[in-house]
Amino acid sequence: MSDDVSAPAEIPDGYTALDWRRGFPGQIGPLYRRIDPSGATMGLRVDERHTNGMLNAHGGVLMTFADMAWGHVVSVETSSYWVTVRLTCDFLSAAKMGDWIEAGGETLSVEGGLYIVRGRIWCGENTLMTGTGVFKPIKRREPRRGEKAFRG
Amino acid sequence: MSDDVSAPAEIPDGYTALDWRRGFPGQIGPLYRRIDPSGATMGLRVDERHTNGMLNAHGGVLMTFADMAWGHVVSVETSSYWVTVRLTCDFLSAAKMGDWIEAGGETLSVEGGLYIVRGRIWCGENTLMTGTGVFKPIKRREPRRGEKAFRG
Repeated sequence: MSDDVSAPAEIPDGYTALDWRRGFPGQIGPLYRRIDPSGATMGLRVDERHTNGMLNAHGGVLMTFADMAWGHVVSVETSSYWVTVRLTCDFLSAAKMGDWIEAGGETLSVEGGLYIVRGRIWCGENTLMTGTGVFKPIKRREPRRGEKAFRG
Repeated sequence: MSDDVSAPAEIPDGYTALDWRRGFPGQIGPLYRRIDPSGATMGLRVDERHTNGMLNAHGGVLMTFADMAWGHVVSVETSSYWVTVRLTCDFLSAAKMGDWIEAGGETLSVEGGLYIVRGRIWCGENTLMTGTGVFKPIKRREPRRGEKAFRG
């Protein structure tokens, strides 16, 4: 592992950095995103800032990553700002310092204005977390690249 | 709100800072703890590092705080290191920048070596989050102050 874990050479093909530098996303990131026909996937390189006492990614990092990546499904589908109503996270396996972890999700249903998203976080072949998010779109905004309503 | 939100004068009586400076707890903290006969409560002052785009505490901060405070019930009861197996978080209300938020939990059951903890995060009279954590003690350690097995 090099000292600079965010060096472009270590970011897998197709991923580009998201410009989320303020507040808590800035504390966690840089976060990366890849858009392909099946949807958006987010990526994160685990570094020392993310660790717990066992030098694995802290549970809070995985849950924050889950919240952002699974909720992003709502952004892609609706071009809206959204809030999290409920998140259930099952911790299956640990992410170690230096690991490149990825997350994505799919909408299971939309009911009463709430999006139910089933999500996963993985590292290579290894699933680290599964879970379900309930997200509520709160305000439409201009479509952005990678979102269904985007006409670029 | 003063510039130095972690100034001792702004920390409610009975709380002392926890010495968690490395890794992710260091990114989130300083975290504070108060021990009284009914158990341990954790406290956190929301500052700019914790915010989302709406300048509220990011959901990831609240979930991380929940994980640490609700799982801390296992530390108090067993003097063990523990891991999180599942966390379910219901987001009821937002925490704003400058808010002093507190969290605590209680064990509902212990089954097959798993602790089921019901937890809450609040700000004054306002409940911000409720939820349930499933935690697994993994290794005993020396009892510390505030833990049931501690003889100080």
